[in-house]
Amino acid sequence: MIIQLKENRTKDAQKELESTLEQFDIQFYPVNTQLKSYLVGLLKKELDLRHIGAMEAVEDVHRVFGKHKLVSADWKRTGSSIAVNDLEIGNGKAIMMAGPCSIESEEQVDLIASYLKEQGIPIMRGGAFKPRTSPYSFRGLGLEGLKMFHSICKSKGIKVITEVMESSQIEHMYPYVDIFQVGARNSQNFNLLEALGKVDKPVLIKRGISGSIDELLYSAEYVFHKGNERIILCERGIRSFESAYRNTLDLNAVPILKEKSHLPVIVDPSHGIGIRKHVPKMSLAGLAAGADGLIVEIHEEPERAFTDGQQSLSLNEFSLLNQKVQQIQDLNLF
Amino acid sequence: MIIQLKENRTKDAQKELESTLEQFDIQFYPVNTQLKSYLVGLLKKELDLRHIGAMEAVEDVHRVFGKHKLVSADWKRTGSSIAVNDLEIGNGKAIMMAGPCSIESEEQVDLIASYLKEQGIPIMRGGAFKPRTSPYSFRGLGLEGLKMFHSICKSKGIKVITEVMESSQIEHMYPYVDIFQVGARNSQNFNLLEALGKVDKPVLIKRGISGSIDELLYSAEYVFHKGNERIILCERGIRSFESAYRNTLDLNAVPILKEKSHLPVIVDPSHGIGIRKHVPKMSLAGLAAGADGLIVEIHEEPERAFTDGQQSLSLNEFSLLNQKVQQIQDLNLF
Amino acid sequence: MIIQLKENRTKDAQKELESTLEQFDIQFYPVNTQLKSYLVGLLKKELDLRHIGAMEAVEDVHRVFGKHKLVSADWKRTGSSIAVNDLEIGNGKAIMMAGPCSIESEEQVDLIASYLKEQGIPIMRGGAFKPRTSPYSFRGLGLEGLKMFHSICKSKGIKVITEVMESSQIEHMYPYVDIFQVGARNSQNFNLLEALGKVDKPVLIKRGISGSIDELLYSAEYVFHKGNERIILCERGIRSFESAYRNTLDLNAVPILKEKSHLPVIVDPSHGIGIRKHVPKMSLAGLAAGADGLIVEIHEEPERAFTDGQQSLSLNEFSLLNQKVQQIQDLNLF
Amino acid sequence: MIIQLKENRTKDAQKELESTLEQFDIQFYPVNTQLKSYLVGLLKKELDLRHIGAMEAVEDVHRVFGKHKLVSADWKRTGSSIAVNDLEIGNGKAIMMAGPCSIESEEQVDLIASYLKEQGIPIMRGGAFKPRTSPYSFRGLGLEGLKMFHSICKSKGIKVITEVMESSQIEHMYPYVDIFQVGARNSQNFNLLEALGKVDKPVLIKRGISGSIDELLYSAEYVFHKGNERIILCERGIRSFESAYRNTLDLNAVPILKEKSHLPVIVDPSHGIGIRKHVPKMSLAGLAAGADGLIVEIHEEPERAFTDGQQSLSLNEFSLLNQKVQQIQDLNLF
Repeated sequence: MIIQLKENRTKDAQKELESTLEQFDIQFYPVNTQLKSYLVGLLKKELDLRHIGAMEAVEDVHRVFGKHKLVSADWKRTGSSIAVNDLEIGNGKAIMMAGPCSIESEEQVDLIASYLKEQGIPIMRGGAFKPRTSPYSFRGLGLEGLKMFHSICKSKGIKVITEVMESSQIEHMYPYVDIFQVGARNSQNFNLLEALGKVDKPVLIKRGISGSIDELLYSAEYVFHKGNERIILCERGIRSFESAYRNTLDLNAVPILKEKSHLPVIVDPSHGIGIRKHVPKMSLAGLAAGADGLIVEIHEEPERAFTDGQQSLSLNEFSLLNQKVQQIQDLNLF
Repeated sequence: MIIQLKENRTKDAQKELESTLEQFDIQFYPVNTQLKSYLVGLLKKELDLRHIGAMEAVEDVHRVFGKHKLVSADWKRTGSSIAVNDLEIGNGKAIMMAGPCSIESEEQVDLIASYLKEQGIPIMRGGAFKPRTSPYSFRGLGLEGLKMFHSICKSKGIKVITEVMESSQIEHMYPYVDIFQVGARNSQNFNLLEALGKVDKPVLIKRGISGSIDELLYSAEYVFHKGNERIILCERGIRSFESAYRNTLDLNAVPILKEKSHLPVIVDPSHGIGIRKHVPKMSLAGLAAGADGLIVEIHEEPERAFTDGQQSLSLNEFSLLNQKVQQIQDLNLF
Repeated sequence: MIIQLKENRTKDAQKELESTLEQFDIQFYPVNTQLKSYLVGLLKKELDLRHIGAMEAVEDVHRVFGKHKLVSADWKRTGSSIAVNDLEIGNGKAIMMAGPCSIESEEQVDLIASYLKEQGIPIMRGGAFKPRTSPYSFRGLGLEGLKMFHSICKSKGIKVITEVMESSQIEHMYPYVDIFQVGARNSQNFNLLEALGKVDKPVLIKRGISGSIDELLYSAEYVFHKGNERIILCERGIRSFESAYRNTLDLNAVPILKEKSHLPVIVDPSHGIGIRKHVPKMSLAGLAAGADGLIVEIHEEPERAFTDGQQSLSLNEFSLLNQKVQQIQDLNLF
Repeated sequence: MIIQLKENRTKDAQKELESTLEQFDIQFYPVNTQLKSYLVGLLKKELDLRHIGAMEAVEDVHRVFGKHKLVSADWKRTGSSIAVNDLEIGNGKAIMMAGPCSIESEEQVDLIASYLKEQGIPIMRGGAFKPRTSPYSFRGLGLEGLKMFHSICKSKGIKVITEVMESSQIEHMYPYVDIFQVGARNSQNFNLLEALGKVDKPVLIKRGISGSIDELLYSAEYVFHKGNERIILCERGIRSFESAYRNTLDLNAVPILKEKSHLPVIVDPSHGIGIRKHVPKMSLAGLAAGADGLIVEIHEEPERAFTDGQQSLSLNEFSLLNQKVQQIQDLNLF
């Protein structure tokens, strides 16, 4: 049960509500986000919601049937649109995010940010802190790199999405980030998720390497229930037995996530197939499956990328893809 | 190495070629299909192909790098177009096949075949012999059902695709089938595949339940090397840990199969997600990924289908999908 | 519901039983095996079994809760012991089967059969018909090879287990086989399974490459319900994302299969890990998990084996393993 | 290449070595653990190691062929034995760890710790900080619980192993922990792994939920290269398509890990199958596969456990298992 509370409720009205819930032996969690206040109630037995709905502090109340609560579509049938400052994600028009796997230099960031501006792409991706399987691999330019990344993007009106790996990084990164990205390996790092729940910036959560759809929704629930409801879900491929490509892009997950949850869903075709020449097809397939946007790895010279060059599009390749995406958008086919 | 032989080569010229191959210690397999004659040579060491190419019996010769030979795109860069009588599959225009999981009655077949004709769908699917996990489930109407199915479809100019489960069925089914379908569970039934290699009708091979892309191509190689090169590959979802849907539709497989092989690739979105309301989205995603067509389960009353009702579209739902498919075809977007 | 029928029941008594079942609207299947007669009833609603139990034709009746019927432990709590002539599989003592992946020559069969006799191993494995992923690989010595294999083994008192790939092979192979093996790729070849249900020789069914435990039990149900209850289940590894070995030996399946079914379960550690030096450890682990026996690939010169040399033990390695197995057997630890 | 440095080397000798490596264009990483000093060198081309071996600062030098360095068996053929104060893990005798999934109360800890002492079990497991898929589940007693847990265990001479979820917890937990456990969901939380690399207490790393064997070894490399070589690897089951049990215990991983690495490997049969009655069989199978020990969930009343009751053994069940384990240990069979 999700109870949406009135903005201007009195303390007394809230107390009355809470004591009523206690009378009905309902365990509840108060949740205050940047947008609204809620009570999440775990119903153990049948209850006539009209009784709750009629109470003074209550704006609306909904039964939620599944295991997920705040992220569930059971109480919020229309999809949420996530504000990134003046930008909206999940409002029916596909959002495009692009950039290198890792940011590598000032020259590169400047070149790519300018290119994105030209292409009308509003958000640039780029890792400053890179989780790498081996400790001996390139680990990113760190906080100083991020500052440079953000400063260049800001000057061009481009937003920055970048990965955060640990709670302790959040406060340092905060001024230089527009969307915090939680990587696949941290998809069930509950401490990190809860810490991001206390931050007023959007969070994009990648599905775990073998994360189930349910687990991804629970991860989003972790962020939401601590107070941040600006959450974007991201399908980026799962691990299967098939070795002909990097990951198995699970496009089935797109309509299922959108059925189960009100949160926007974007697709990462770059990690999703891991093979440069097939990224454009899988991008279009992602949109056809109903995704609210794409996050694509691009590089000015993919052969020389520090990381993930094999799956990064060149700028020319991306321009062609972007053109098709815009064409499809205009036709309103999906 | 694939050697394409001249149609009008003399026996002597062929003998000369074969003895040359023997001299070079090349193991070779003669393959005569309904369309052409080939020699498949397994190269163990470096060889100047021009020497072979210059011989009298040889029309053309190509090096094939991977493990797959006759099905490989290494020797045939342009995709094969498969003739089903007057129809072509894989010629750039998406082919649509639709019909019930199992044919259930004459009334049903008549109703659906008429509907398909009206919709301009050239091929009707329908199982007469059903492989079922449990021996106590409905197993299909059998050969008599197939005869009825074919007769009705023929009268309306619709082609029939249906599953064959065992070599011994082939000759009985032959007159009543336009495309033989090999099911996912038989994807590595090598006896069945070889028997279908000796038949002059197209064969659609479904990827195994956990079949790798390479294994699917080897299964096609089994059919081809026995003499039948009219082969269609079908992605229908693989088994993964995810349980939110029936199978994990692996659309990555589409561009990869089309890169590795010259054979047409179609997508089965019905088994691929297994949830009726999401089938249309996954159909479009399949085409966006580059598929040459779709095979879709439909039923006049999905709730009453003997088998697979949960993933069968109603006729209305299919009409809407078909409309979108035709619209996209016309725009030539993918 | 499994109804065990009296051996000496009259036709009238059986008719009376059947018409009673019809009165109760119970769908039923008569099953006559080499050992006994049964009626499998599919209960749709509650029923007092005592009513059935009291009827003249009935020896015993049991409710079966799960989806599997004849193979279920619900009606037969004590494990079945499968007779292979004078030998028993599943009687509490681990059975050992060993031999080459493919039989390669008379000399080899003679050498290995003699070795097995010396070691006290009662059953020799060896493929005569080999399912191979590629059509260009060695496919076995065929029926003539099988005759030779059987004749040598018979002369030494060793039983033969070998793979059958298609129904049409059964009658030709019948005289030369003591246990028919159904391979992983044919685990859901229902035509083959039903054909083996009509044969009075034991059948070993390997779990499918990505076959679920439930599917393996259903495959056994196919054999049983056609009349053959001499069935052995075999865990041989499943397909997972891990690529450090050939298959993921799923030893969890052993206690689960033995809990769900009364059929004996053996383990194939050779395919289960696919790496020669680790086969002995996984053999012992299989027995510790509760397996009724092992089927192990051995070869007189593993480096020169036509097939599966990388996972075949040398005779010395097998002798050491066999010694440990006997030691553990004597201690009665598992 | 792993260079073991002499304990009493001079600064000059180390400098000389480092400048030689630079001359040879070898990238190197100095690693100082609680036990020894190393240089990890990443060789790009052929090099005669004798030249390095002869240098003053060098105790020994080994080529390491695979991708893993410090954890590789290439340079340390004999398995490492990990000291937990006076206890040794990996010295040939199986180590037993047991305890509840979560510690629940002082009474419980006291009861179980006393029981373990009686049984001769030296290490008690118990979660104080619990990663839970849903934010609404029980999350553990926290730091105060851990203090109580440690204090009771210490008074009985029992060591404590417990999970750490985030770097920031380490310093607070440090005084109350004998072995830090990294859970499956944090198996690639590289910040946490590096932070544990700076701590002088043993670390047990669980394999990721779908972590590959290689990834587990890389995770261990993260800990080692920051200075902590007291690492224990733990196989706890992977995610597969099979749903008849909780996880697929991958016992193949045991011999493979022990072949690739010198680190001790233990098995968690409780998560590995997730079904109480099958835990003892899988425990024995784990030892048969070559594990250096077991970590088993037990509970004084499994039906009432806050978490994981379905896979926790009762004390009686564990006593029986422990007896068998001791018996097998004495026989020295594996």
